[in-house]
Amino acid sequence: MKTESRLVQWICWLIVITSFFLTGFIIGWFARPTSTDTSHDAGSRRHLREFLDEMRAENIRDHLRKFTRLPHLAGTEQNLQLAEQIKGEWLAYGLDSVEMVPYDVLLSYPNISQPNYISIVDELGNEMFNTSLSEPVPEGYENVSDIVPPYSAFSAQGQPVGDLVYVNYGRTEDFFQLEREMGINVTGKIVIVRYGNVFRGNKVKNAMLHGARGIIMFSDPADYCAPGVQPYPDGWNLPGGGAQRGNVLNLNGAGDPLTPGYPAKEYTYRYNLEEGVGLPKIPVHPIGYHDAIQLLKNMGGDIPPNNWKGALNVSYRIGPGFTDSFSTQKVRMNIHTNNQVTRIYNVIGRLRGAVEPDRYVILGGHRDAWVFGGIDPVTGAAVVHESVRSAGKLLRKGWRPRRSIVFASWDAEEFGLLGSTEWAEENAKVLQERAVAYINADSAIEGMYTLRIDCTPSLHTLVYDITKQVSSPEEGEEGLSLYESWHKRDNWTDDRDAPRISKLGSGSDFEAYFIRLGIAAGRARYTKNRKTERYSSYPVYHSVYETFELVERFYDPSFRKLRAVAQVRGGLIFLLADSQLLPLDASQYAGSLTKYAHTIAQLGQKHPDALVKYGVSFDSLFSAVENFTVAARDFHERLTTLDRTDPIQIRMVNDQLMYLERAFVDPLGLPGRPFYRHVIFAPSSHNKYAGESFPGIYDALFDIERTANPKEAWDEVRRQISIAAFTVQAAAMTLTPPA
Amino acid sequence: MKTESRLVQWICWLIVITSFFLTGFIIGWFARPTSTDTSHDAGSRRHLREFLDEMRAENIRDHLRKFTRLPHLAGTEQNLQLAEQIKGEWLAYGLDSVEMVPYDVLLSYPNISQPNYISIVDELGNEMFNTSLSEPVPEGYENVSDIVPPYSAFSAQGQPVGDLVYVNYGRTEDFFQLEREMGINVTGKIVIVRYGNVFRGNKVKNAMLHGARGIIMFSDPADYCAPGVQPYPDGWNLPGGGAQRGNVLNLNGAGDPLTPGYPAKEYTYRYNLEEGVGLPKIPVHPIGYHDAIQLLKNMGGDIPPNNWKGALNVSYRIGPGFTDSFSTQKVRMNIHTNNQVTRIYNVIGRLRGAVEPDRYVILGGHRDAWVFGGIDPVTGAAVVHESVRSAGKLLRKGWRPRRSIVFASWDAEEFGLLGSTEWAEENAKVLQERAVAYINADSAIEGMYTLRIDCTPSLHTLVYDITKQVSSPEEGEEGLSLYESWHKRDNWTDDRDAPRISKLGSGSDFEAYFIRLGIAAGRARYTKNRKTERYSSYPVYHSVYETFELVERFYDPSFRKLRAVAQVRGGLIFLLADSQLLPLDASQYAGSLTKYAHTIAQLGQKHPDALVKYGVSFDSLFSAVENFTVAARDFHERLTTLDRTDPIQIRMVNDQLMYLERAFVDPLGLPGRPFYRHVIFAPSSHNKYAGESFPGIYDALFDIERTANPKEAWDEVRRQISIAAFTVQAAAMTLTPPA
Repeated sequence: MKTESRLVQWICWLIVITSFFLTGFIIGWFARPTSTDTSHDAGSRRHLREFLDEMRAENIRDHLRKFTRLPHLAGTEQNLQLAEQIKGEWLAYGLDSVEMVPYDVLLSYPNISQPNYISIVDELGNEMFNTSLSEPVPEGYENVSDIVPPYSAFSAQGQPVGDLVYVNYGRTEDFFQLEREMGINVTGKIVIVRYGNVFRGNKVKNAMLHGARGIIMFSDPADYCAPGVQPYPDGWNLPGGGAQRGNVLNLNGAGDPLTPGYPAKEYTYRYNLEEGVGLPKIPVHPIGYHDAIQLLKNMGGDIPPNNWKGALNVSYRIGPGFTDSFSTQKVRMNIHTNNQVTRIYNVIGRLRGAVEPDRYVILGGHRDAWVFGGIDPVTGAAVVHESVRSAGKLLRKGWRPRRSIVFASWDAEEFGLLGSTEWAEENAKVLQERAVAYINADSAIEGMYTLRIDCTPSLHTLVYDITKQVSSPEEGEEGLSLYESWHKRDNWTDDRDAPRISKLGSGSDFEAYFIRLGIAAGRARYTKNRKTERYSSYPVYHSVYETFELVERFYDPSFRKLRAVAQVRGGLIFLLADSQLLPLDASQYAGSLTKYAHTIAQLGQKHPDALVKYGVSFDSLFSAVENFTVAARDFHERLTTLDRTDPIQIRMVNDQLMYLERAFVDPLGLPGRPFYRHVIFAPSSHNKYAGESFPGIYDALFDIERTANPKEAWDEVRRQISIAAFTVQAAAMTLTPPA
Repeated sequence: MKTESRLVQWICWLIVITSFFLTGFIIGWFARPTSTDTSHDAGSRRHLREFLDEMRAENIRDHLRKFTRLPHLAGTEQNLQLAEQIKGEWLAYGLDSVEMVPYDVLLSYPNISQPNYISIVDELGNEMFNTSLSEPVPEGYENVSDIVPPYSAFSAQGQPVGDLVYVNYGRTEDFFQLEREMGINVTGKIVIVRYGNVFRGNKVKNAMLHGARGIIMFSDPADYCAPGVQPYPDGWNLPGGGAQRGNVLNLNGAGDPLTPGYPAKEYTYRYNLEEGVGLPKIPVHPIGYHDAIQLLKNMGGDIPPNNWKGALNVSYRIGPGFTDSFSTQKVRMNIHTNNQVTRIYNVIGRLRGAVEPDRYVILGGHRDAWVFGGIDPVTGAAVVHESVRSAGKLLRKGWRPRRSIVFASWDAEEFGLLGSTEWAEENAKVLQERAVAYINADSAIEGMYTLRIDCTPSLHTLVYDITKQVSSPEEGEEGLSLYESWHKRDNWTDDRDAPRISKLGSGSDFEAYFIRLGIAAGRARYTKNRKTERYSSYPVYHSVYETFELVERFYDPSFRKLRAVAQVRGGLIFLLADSQLLPLDASQYAGSLTKYAHTIAQLGQKHPDALVKYGVSFDSLFSAVENFTVAARDFHERLTTLDRTDPIQIRMVNDQLMYLERAFVDPLGLPGRPFYRHVIFAPSSHNKYAGESFPGIYDALFDIERTANPKEAWDEVRRQISIAAFTVQAAAMTLTPPA
């Protein structure tokens, strides 16, 4: 009996113990998280705050000062040394690796022994007037050597002599007006145009197309001086002796003119100069407005319409040639600029991602400058430098982003986006497969008014998010966020009550990443007041007067504006790299597509009779956009119920988000522009700077106005609508649930 | 004291219980697997066995019988009905979804009221002889209507009259020999060529290039009859009244000629017929050898070299025109074939993957046939059908593959791979991002000797693996594997002691997937003895004699060969879809690239002086291949230490494997062939059927022999070497560890 009861007791205890063990086992089993940390995003936000706060105005000032002491023209020893310095500092800041990546690309320099200039010559060829050979050097830089004089990079060599014709901005519509309305043919003439409104390469292309023997570009005070502002150094306006350097290529995204489509490495096949992409066949030269007055003042011919007149004290007669007693005088261009294959260096720094090292977020901007690069590009490079430093600081504390971050210091941007494009070409496959986004870091400031964002629609939401976490840099706005400050100054009134965000055009290093490869991209900078300040870019753009002092005295004395831009650019890459779910918004893309479809259809509807006659309809495009809208909405709805603990589920939807931008790329390219492949966004064929939506349709409609064969032109509109509709439809398919 | 001791006792028990609970908790915590099942692959192998064993010869026989009773020409009601039937059966077998996907593509049919034929006419135009209007119908099919007579699809219409010139196979080298060595110009003539050796479209293109007014193609017994074999129905040789249908396009991968690059949907812009891709501008017609004798027997002109002579009892004189008393007679072609935009239907069946539904493995083959499709394509379609049935059976038992499987029944393959190409165009973005591999399922048998595999190098290892798990279908080889049986019959002697595997060319539906999109691809079929059987394809190819009985009586009476092919094709998709690590082998690719580099360099080294003179070197290519080899070796080495329990790690390496083939695709395409984008494999410009390695270099070297401008031709060789080197180098980069 006793042994029996003891046995029962033992059994009871055994049961109790076993059941406690089992309870423990079961709780243990289920308590264990089976996957990645779901509280990741909260931690990420805390790190973001640290990352943003670590960026200091004072440091940005120091970087800018340090990087602007000497000229850093692409292909020069100074720019190589700067690359080495940046590499060293990035390594010291703590990046996992930093490498120099060289390419041998076609650059273009003035001939030192034969300077470029323009003359007025008499009938014997005697030079009556010559334009200046250089700009007056600003105070403090008198002893600097290697300041390249103003020139048009890649100009053809030659000494054409001819009568001048003034063609306003040299746009397609200006030449059209000149020929059709004013009855003037520029064949065999030298054209003179003012800078501004469109990319200078487009002006040169137009001049060539119309048969000009040379082209002179000048900075008119109407376009390069703000009212009430003194010329530099007393203010930030362009002095009369300053002139705008710049390349005059028509690359359309090809990169190095001799190796289109492929990286310019030692083994790469190079075309001959005559076969090179986008090289002008005529001499080109830029001058300042003091010299321009001398060329313009005695011109003959008709007085042009008022919108052709600038702010100089001349009558802006269109020519051809000079008037009255000067009519025997001609203009001679003396251009001896040389093209030469030259080694350039990108600096590529990497920070390895902790969870998905095969996903890349890129922050890239150029390092090469025409002279000191006070604004362009060093305000950008200084911002990148400070971002690297801040990221390095976090790294030391044990932080590491989910995805990899790539920092790039591009070379030879000024010669046609060459460094960034060659690297994109060399890494195209890897980037297509793995790049999440590209944030551009060219000049961080071009005005003193407010923030300017150009980006792909899927980044809109993230831009608003990050600007709400950055403080306004404006005096007297201590409590305000950058978002609020920006919203106040530039509301998107037509469309929505939010700060305005613009489309990406071209003209900086994001081009190959966005327009060729279809990687989501954006750029941020401080800008002027678009409503009141009508000059192009900023007055001293690409002149010797872009100095450190220009920024310190006028643009951003506290360096708080640059810090705000650094926080926006840095914040974007931080959240793109570290968020568990990619912060890309397909619904914003849908909204933008809807808007663009209406805009382009309205442009077509200016010709209601032709639409009927040639059977042109935008219905397929609207229908595709509608499908995309539904697919995007459903996609984001599914995200709300996603199992955040399942790493494959997360990766699948992130892949869909990452590849969304890729879906808008057509490998066949836009007509005649094989490297512009983005069907939604590309520059117009008539202005590289302007990003157009549905550029294929836009260009086809642009031609309608000037065509001799409307049937063919409208067929091309129909073809482009069909391609756009297909592309949007295909993009919608990438958002539907797989399988 | 008592309460105290009881307290102690309770505490003791509490400690014991707690410690048991904790032990349980800890064991439970660690016992729980934190990630995917690592024993997955063992289970997968067991399911593979079930999947293979489930496929039955008897069923394949039944599918073949059922699908070959009626003609199924693309664009006809019968072929739509067959599509509906297949859709219904695939759904019944258990696929998750099956849809019909229509396109409106350009097809081409004879004019029913004006039959096509060729005449010999006298000087008054009287018809002295006419070729037959149709083939004698095989027994049992006398009452079948809608048998389309032999014709060349997409032939131009017209009734050209002229003298005949015989140009052997009509290859580039045949025309070159005719003009340069024999001194005969075919301008204004009608050329007659024998079928075989190169794709018929290439013959037509050559005839056009050389100015012929029409082209007649005949099947010579030397190329379409095996010695000692009777004509059908007593054997499997081509009867004298049989002729080979086929399209004569030069699409170079464009798909529908009117919508190159885009899917032929309702809203798609269509080019005019005159602008269509690859449409011949001259009449073309195929004839059998009975009719050919009549055209050839009285021909005049020189006797050609022996390798121009076929097996007919005529002297194969080259012309032009007839001899002696027949010299006033001419040949007239009477061709009234119509091009017309017609609706076609693909059938797309899907089986959703359990773990990675966004990864697709595709098994696709065409359904449309010229007549009954006894071999082409129904031996292939029957095999796909049995694969679907077997997969459905496993699905019912609860199995589901890791990745998704897509089964496709393509339409209009015979008209230029149209169905498969349009679907590839419509789904290009999704496929580029998500397709793991494409296995083609055209004709499963073309001979009775052994297995034939054409595939991308990364599939070699998997092909050997799966063929070791399939039994030999040969009589008396009961214990042998298919691998052993195949190895015995077709050893890869030159290269290695293993069964021979060939390069992919073109001529079937894998083209758009492999050569345009860069998706790993392969095909498997039973074939003839390549050493002893020299006829092209199989004798009755594309004739009315391709019947069920042809297969049942001669090619595979037991249907075990077809079953073996089904097991190979099915086994490939099974393992591609269900293996945790993708069974793709980068090192095999490295080995093949090394071999190809040597082959192409040897071809170049036939011109040692020119290589020096024009500075042509293959060094960059060899260096890139070496880098690729190292990258591939290191990649596979890293795989051995991969953490198989980390889903993101697995996905990362699988992505690298999946995208490896994509890395060989150049968006710029091969010269003049924008839709052939694979830099390693594409058909030669001179023969669509032949897959060449480094086709860009190959074509450039091909031109060397015939060029008038060697400098330019060698420049193109240099350019192509540079592109190949770059592409291989870029592919190597995709295999290195990310970030």
